[in-house]
Amino acid sequence: MLDAKLVIRSHSEQKTVVKLSEQVTVGGQELLVIGGPCSVESLVQMEVVAEHLATAPVQALRGGVYKPRTSPYAFQGLGLEGLEILTAVRQRYNMPVVTEVMAVSQIAAIATAADVLQVGSRNMQNFELLKALGQCDKPVLLKRGLSATLEEFILAAEYILSHGNPQVVLCERGIRSFDPYTRNVLDLGAVAALKQLTHLPVIVDPSHAVGKRELVADLARAAVACGADGLIIECHPQPEQSVSDARQALSLAEMVTLVHSLGAIAAAVGRSLPRINIPSLAVPSTVCG
Amino acid sequence: MLDAKLVIRSHSEQKTVVKLSEQVTVGGQELLVIGGPCSVESLVQMEVVAEHLATAPVQALRGGVYKPRTSPYAFQGLGLEGLEILTAVRQRYNMPVVTEVMAVSQIAAIATAADVLQVGSRNMQNFELLKALGQCDKPVLLKRGLSATLEEFILAAEYILSHGNPQVVLCERGIRSFDPYTRNVLDLGAVAALKQLTHLPVIVDPSHAVGKRELVADLARAAVACGADGLIIECHPQPEQSVSDARQALSLAEMVTLVHSLGAIAAAVGRSLPRINIPSLAVPSTVCG
Amino acid sequence: MLDAKLVIRSHSEQKTVVKLSEQVTVGGQELLVIGGPCSVESLVQMEVVAEHLATAPVQALRGGVYKPRTSPYAFQGLGLEGLEILTAVRQRYNMPVVTEVMAVSQIAAIATAADVLQVGSRNMQNFELLKALGQCDKPVLLKRGLSATLEEFILAAEYILSHGNPQVVLCERGIRSFDPYTRNVLDLGAVAALKQLTHLPVIVDPSHAVGKRELVADLARAAVACGADGLIIECHPQPEQSVSDARQALSLAEMVTLVHSLGAIAAAVGRSLPRINIPSLAVPSTVCG
Amino acid sequence: MLDAKLVIRSHSEQKTVVKLSEQVTVGGQELLVIGGPCSVESLVQMEVVAEHLATAPVQALRGGVYKPRTSPYAFQGLGLEGLEILTAVRQRYNMPVVTEVMAVSQIAAIATAADVLQVGSRNMQNFELLKALGQCDKPVLLKRGLSATLEEFILAAEYILSHGNPQVVLCERGIRSFDPYTRNVLDLGAVAALKQLTHLPVIVDPSHAVGKRELVADLARAAVACGADGLIIECHPQPEQSVSDARQALSLAEMVTLVHSLGAIAAAVGRSLPRINIPSLAVPSTVCG
Repeated sequence: MLDAKLVIRSHSEQKTVVKLSEQVTVGGQELLVIGGPCSVESLVQMEVVAEHLATAPVQALRGGVYKPRTSPYAFQGLGLEGLEILTAVRQRYNMPVVTEVMAVSQIAAIATAADVLQVGSRNMQNFELLKALGQCDKPVLLKRGLSATLEEFILAAEYILSHGNPQVVLCERGIRSFDPYTRNVLDLGAVAALKQLTHLPVIVDPSHAVGKRELVADLARAAVACGADGLIIECHPQPEQSVSDARQALSLAEMVTLVHSLGAIAAAVGRSLPRINIPSLAVPSTVCG
Repeated sequence: MLDAKLVIRSHSEQKTVVKLSEQVTVGGQELLVIGGPCSVESLVQMEVVAEHLATAPVQALRGGVYKPRTSPYAFQGLGLEGLEILTAVRQRYNMPVVTEVMAVSQIAAIATAADVLQVGSRNMQNFELLKALGQCDKPVLLKRGLSATLEEFILAAEYILSHGNPQVVLCERGIRSFDPYTRNVLDLGAVAALKQLTHLPVIVDPSHAVGKRELVADLARAAVACGADGLIIECHPQPEQSVSDARQALSLAEMVTLVHSLGAIAAAVGRSLPRINIPSLAVPSTVCG
Repeated sequence: MLDAKLVIRSHSEQKTVVKLSEQVTVGGQELLVIGGPCSVESLVQMEVVAEHLATAPVQALRGGVYKPRTSPYAFQGLGLEGLEILTAVRQRYNMPVVTEVMAVSQIAAIATAADVLQVGSRNMQNFELLKALGQCDKPVLLKRGLSATLEEFILAAEYILSHGNPQVVLCERGIRSFDPYTRNVLDLGAVAALKQLTHLPVIVDPSHAVGKRELVADLARAAVACGADGLIIECHPQPEQSVSDARQALSLAEMVTLVHSLGAIAAAVGRSLPRINIPSLAVPSTVCG
Repeated sequence: MLDAKLVIRSHSEQKTVVKLSEQVTVGGQELLVIGGPCSVESLVQMEVVAEHLATAPVQALRGGVYKPRTSPYAFQGLGLEGLEILTAVRQRYNMPVVTEVMAVSQIAAIATAADVLQVGSRNMQNFELLKALGQCDKPVLLKRGLSATLEEFILAAEYILSHGNPQVVLCERGIRSFDPYTRNVLDLGAVAALKQLTHLPVIVDPSHAVGKRELVADLARAAVACGADGLIIECHPQPEQSVSDARQALSLAEMVTLVHSLGAIAAAVGRSLPRINIPSLAVPSTVCG
């Protein structure tokens, strides 16, 4: 790990706190909880999500508009239309937004519409993308590759820092393994190790890790107990009708219940749940019954 | 999993509670914490361990006397001498003892000296051993194989139940993966899944999972938050001098600190730490310094 | 690997040649080909198999009578009845027989009925079994564990040698991995490495490695080209009706065709196909049309 | 695999033959052998390589000029200077050249300098790159990702074909696994399966698979025996001084010896070694002694 001179803990006297917005940070005492659908499907969908999650409290929204899909014939995301939806929702609800960037050519547009640019697992070693994000002034959420060692993960982050962007959040999202029962294996040992080895915030995505909604809450609680700085969780107004990853999305009610269950665990490890950052929300005009 | 008709949850109306002794159970509301060295090295060692752990409170002791070692030239355990030490310690401290059984021929002697017979990862599919343990009247702690699927793990337990012994405790202890930084990868998704799929108690061994003492506590807390029914953790009076697995053993002080940290997390998920089950302990005569 | 002082190549000035019978060896210039069903099902079945394979030429027969099955409710093998069948067939056809031993208690009976005792993948680190086989005077076919490192595999062999039995044949049979398309992943890099690291014969089981009969022949040829000392391949008179592993068994005609295709590849790497060791066979009386 | 309608075998009546140049193809009766260093280091280096390999015969050259390196501080390739070297060498020796493309922005320049654009393992699911290569008129050498399933690999190729480019060569280069002895595990079962499932040429990279030069030749021979359509092998004039992947590069003499050893194996599976395609070579002026 010696090569990762900017990412390793000895580089910085204190833990890095990354700002998603004026009110929302990750890496400090307060946990970050990010929620939302796998894919942005419509403005109504995102408004319903934001409406329910804002008071959970969930501090930030996720939603993919450029989707890395295994098959070229699968839904590839709404693209620019999706960015417009994200722009509308983040303004209305004052919630920062995380979305995935798949190519250098998408960075400028996404950086305008979103607060955090996510690098997905499949692109963790897309070094040209990492270099370009190193010259971006928005935080980067870097997901661990499906079979990336910790050294490779840390050095992928080092690409971003060494090209000028210190705002990197690491995300453990499950590694590929042999058991077909769960989609991937959540590696919380990696979370504990990354917290010791680096000064960067480390969050956990239990949804992609396990791939089955009935197991998400247990792993989310485990991640908080393990010392993760936050969670990114997939939820959807009608999970079964999600255009992607339907099997792992929580309902919005399940998401709220999950967040409520985290408080006592957070407190047990010296952390706190996010405060509700938007005390009074205008009812969105477009939300359907 | 349909084949595992005795182990799957629908077989039993309620969760199975396994009794290690009159006072100590696993699978109920109270967590089970088992602690002790990888190998039984001497009576003095085990007395020091028991003395410190009894009031942690740790409810049961572990210690190997027949050791499955990768190399034939490595320390193979104290054997019968070790069983005598276990017998002495469990009586003096009134703490049930868990130790590994490697062969059918060892069952009778171990069943006399110990309260729980552990099947190690390498023997999870030693079916002749499983069948023989099915005819034993002591509880069996069945560790998941290094690369066993959940289906294989559940069916290994089914071997024991179908041969007559319903007292089985499942133990997740990390699976083999690609990253050299941690010894194995703790699969807490498997713990959550096993709790849903079966009616058996499920405990976690964070020590073997991660293989580095500085990461054990984080994973132990994660396991409790995830819903595990207990923990089995390696600790040693002088970890660096342990004859086996020295790199992962906690000191006794670290073990006590860890146990104390579990209470709030247990409470957050509706469980409780073990009560101290031996209020007044005689000071053992043979404990050195 | 330094610990494996008896197994590593520097221990022996020359490659070890293991004798299965007076006529059949492995580790020399001539390849060993072992064929037969997963499970011994009947005398007729084994006679049909031997009849067809003897002139392929296949030099030795395989057939399980004690079967390590994932489920306790699956067919567990014919046991002693199976041993009687093996005894009858090996005498009639003068072909050595390989069969699996699962427990110390089975060694004596199997050593009487078979020429080679196989340790299956699940028992590669059943150290009590390895020690007992070290005191046996029959060759041992040691299969690599599903997730055993080369170091663990070599040290498992060292258990047998260090307990007195130098007649060990290593067998690569595929390792567990993430892709559901093939059952396991055949690791021919391990075969090449084991040939360099040790003086023991190394054979390959392509049937269990790939788990689909249509891929077995390609991998068998690859194994020979890679330098393997032999092959062990599953075949059955009526593959679809095999009581176990039906999906991977070749028909007897496919087996014969495969063996014929190996000659040119063997020659290309300085080896030769087995000679036909039984020029004139009596037609067995019990073979059905 | 149903989604991969263009790649699966039933789509095409015959196997696809991809042309690297007027004289060199892959997917037909003749094997393709590609050789060269991991990284292009200098014109002299590449001339020495071409000079030695042309008569091996090796038909095509490899050499990276844009290098995906785990660390941002490692040598990143010569870039445009490297492309100029490739241009010079391919003209002088009339050998097609394969080099890696890491980003959409590099495609135009590389397509001018090279005959085949390689997508490395880390970019196998860089879908924006795949889409752009689908609009390119040069063949694409698509390497399997480190932990890509066959379905994912096939669908990555489908991205290229469905965007308009039918000239795709699949390359198995080892998958990530648990054993530290070899760098990766060569999955020849995947090669056999891909040959059955698709109509595309499938080649093998034994160098990256095993990561140790002393094991490369055995795996190269195994790949040919298994039915691979070709090989891509790393070699270097002075392997120990290679700026990258020094441990796995063959010397040029070892490479020539290896190619010579392939002929008999190729013949055994109905294939032939490449003919020498450049009968009389001008001695390059810049080659040092």
